[in-house]
Amino acid sequence: MMSKPIFYHAGCTVCVEAEQAVAKALNAEIVHLGEQPGRLAEAEAAGIKSVPAVLLDGGVFHINFGAALADLKA
Amino acid sequence: MMSKPIFYHAGCTVCVEAEQAVAKALNAEIVHLGEQPGRLAEAEAAGIKSVPAVLLDGGVFHINFGAALADLKA
Repeated sequence: MMSKPIFYHAGCTVCVEAEQAVAKALNAEIVHLGEQPGRLAEAEAAGIKSVPAVLLDGGVFHINFGAALADLKA
Repeated sequence: MMSKPIFYHAGCTVCVEAEQAVAKALNAEIVHLGEQPGRLAEAEAAGIKSVPAVLLDGGVFHINFGAALADLKA
């Protein structure tokens, strides 16, 4: 059984467009890293370098380019 | 009703990983541009700049970076 996809984003325009289309089509859990900075470490450990990105069983897939994860750390 | 997603790729490693995970999760139509160069114009018209990419109702989403579309034209 495939684990539920997780879609990480940061609320930027690129992210929101991807959220409306990709995350919904994948029925993914949605994590807004701007509002949930406590999940940055988890995203980084999964191999996420930028958002929007989706974590699937097959690994991390970066979608277009919104923001580097490094820029989300205050 | 959402139209069926189309996943464009060119058979490279990045593409194949995305195909196994993203395209299957989206239940997308899969188009291998290396084998179907006749569909390059359609991909380009949709706004695809590189593969792998997925075309959804919300637009074009480029996944990671495999190959530029320009490099697929002989």
